[in-house]
Amino acid sequence: MKLLVVGTVAFDAIETPFGKTDRIIGGAAPYIGLAASYFSRGIGIVSAVGGDFPVEYINLLNEHGLDTGGLEIREDEKSFFWSGKYDTDMNTRETLDTRLNVIENYHPVVPESYRESEYLILGNLSPEIQIAVIEQMKTRPRLIVLDTMNFWIANTPTSLKKVIGMVDVLAINDSEARELSGDYSLPRAAKKILSMGPKFLIIKKGENGALLFGNNKVFFAPALPLEEVFDPTGAGDTFAGGFTGYLASTGDVSFENMKSAIIAGAAMASFCVEKFGTENLVNLDSAIINQRINQFSELVRFEHRFID
Amino acid sequence: MKLLVVGTVAFDAIETPFGKTDRIIGGAAPYIGLAASYFSRGIGIVSAVGGDFPVEYINLLNEHGLDTGGLEIREDEKSFFWSGKYDTDMNTRETLDTRLNVIENYHPVVPESYRESEYLILGNLSPEIQIAVIEQMKTRPRLIVLDTMNFWIANTPTSLKKVIGMVDVLAINDSEARELSGDYSLPRAAKKILSMGPKFLIIKKGENGALLFGNNKVFFAPALPLEEVFDPTGAGDTFAGGFTGYLASTGDVSFENMKSAIIAGAAMASFCVEKFGTENLVNLDSAIINQRINQFSELVRFEHRFID
Repeated sequence: MKLLVVGTVAFDAIETPFGKTDRIIGGAAPYIGLAASYFSRGIGIVSAVGGDFPVEYINLLNEHGLDTGGLEIREDEKSFFWSGKYDTDMNTRETLDTRLNVIENYHPVVPESYRESEYLILGNLSPEIQIAVIEQMKTRPRLIVLDTMNFWIANTPTSLKKVIGMVDVLAINDSEARELSGDYSLPRAAKKILSMGPKFLIIKKGENGALLFGNNKVFFAPALPLEEVFDPTGAGDTFAGGFTGYLASTGDVSFENMKSAIIAGAAMASFCVEKFGTENLVNLDSAIINQRINQFSELVRFEHRFID
Repeated sequence: MKLLVVGTVAFDAIETPFGKTDRIIGGAAPYIGLAASYFSRGIGIVSAVGGDFPVEYINLLNEHGLDTGGLEIREDEKSFFWSGKYDTDMNTRETLDTRLNVIENYHPVVPESYRESEYLILGNLSPEIQIAVIEQMKTRPRLIVLDTMNFWIANTPTSLKKVIGMVDVLAINDSEARELSGDYSLPRAAKKILSMGPKFLIIKKGENGALLFGNNKVFFAPALPLEEVFDPTGAGDTFAGGFTGYLASTGDVSFENMKSAIIAGAAMASFCVEKFGTENLVNLDSAIINQRINQFSELVRFEHRFID
């Protein structure tokens, strides 16, 4: 495999001011995988679902070129379920229900054919699961991208710091960066976090864009100002998936290329939030994606004139 | 005059997690004027202070080329005084004391020699005062820039909408744009506000940059990620001053040039917040400013590659 995606595959039930869904396909891995699929071939998913998980959802992933040979189906268990409700501002959400189910005692098994993947992205899961995956790799991937969340910062700091020390890129949001570093200033937080091991840090700021730190440089990617934000679920995973898929397809993990990769991720995230769940990630094509990347370019382009 | 600046000239007493000041020079006009002075000559200030206002503060403005012929000194009154305290996050501040004093019954008088100014910037003041200034102009300025705040949106909506209809550029922050338009989505809020009259709208987002809307286009200017934000007081005024000063100096009020002007404003604001009050705005030069503008350019520059 070129790119190995590890993350939850789940049911989501989402409520926004614009409507609500029944149980739809959710979890980090589908968002990451679908976003990456527009850039890279050879993507495998490692995760687990219960016997209740519809075969059509698995087919959907396969139709986008995602290999599900690493997706364990435990017939007697139930799939991970999350239900949440967004406020009018779309920035605050309330978790209505979380049932770990099959994920509760999940021990990932990386199939033999995935163990030499060049790129590895670890979606938000317990640091123990993330470490177990890295340890099963036969060759050290060229690039490991890690996502995590405040729950692990607060509850399993030791193993979280261990896995952070094993990866190349950490992607977290601004409040997580502040919590992890204990520093309110994001540039100072970035310095502290980079000293924990990763070469690059992405700080996601939702509708306020994202920052990339590394090589003593900083890059800022805006978010597209959208008239309609319909459902923010999965935007962060989609961003990370577009980012990693772009890097995998170009084979260039320099800071310069990561900047373009972040714009690719931001473009994919902008599609994601325009419809419910993964709905807007299943019918894109390169023309539509290029047009959107062009909008990002236009959004920040200015003539750099010196004053005298 | 090339550029007429109307705004409070005041005493500020500021407390941040890093220290506190005695009564220092504050108010919108000094920040606007000082920022603009690095770009444009021929800047006049219209405002009023009390007999308690130190002559050294007026000298400071004059030394930066600011004409204070329009600054009324009312010997028997006291100057406007504001005192505030910032939280650790530097985004929320508490007003400890506000004494309008001389501003309470202020009726601006624009000196004869200012009445044909090409550019006019109206700092945050009551809409009635702002309208009175526009009505005293002999010739319609080439560009009028308006700042306001939530207080006037809530308390004097009719006269506020009147003055908004008389200007070319409105510069407000994101929460004010949402309040004024009644719409949470900033692109939709922008459409509604532009339909009230101004050709251009700047939405300031503090540490998250600023958006420019107009000509059916949008531009995003980032804020520089600073390690140390020492005191945010006056950052919005400094931004508006740099923006307007840049436009006045280039004589080009196209959307394209406004993009460069916004970057100039953002650069000046980034200097402002690095020290208390106006302290960091008094010793800059073009080399330092150009270097900072270059940092903005570097911050958002990426290679725009199409995917296939």
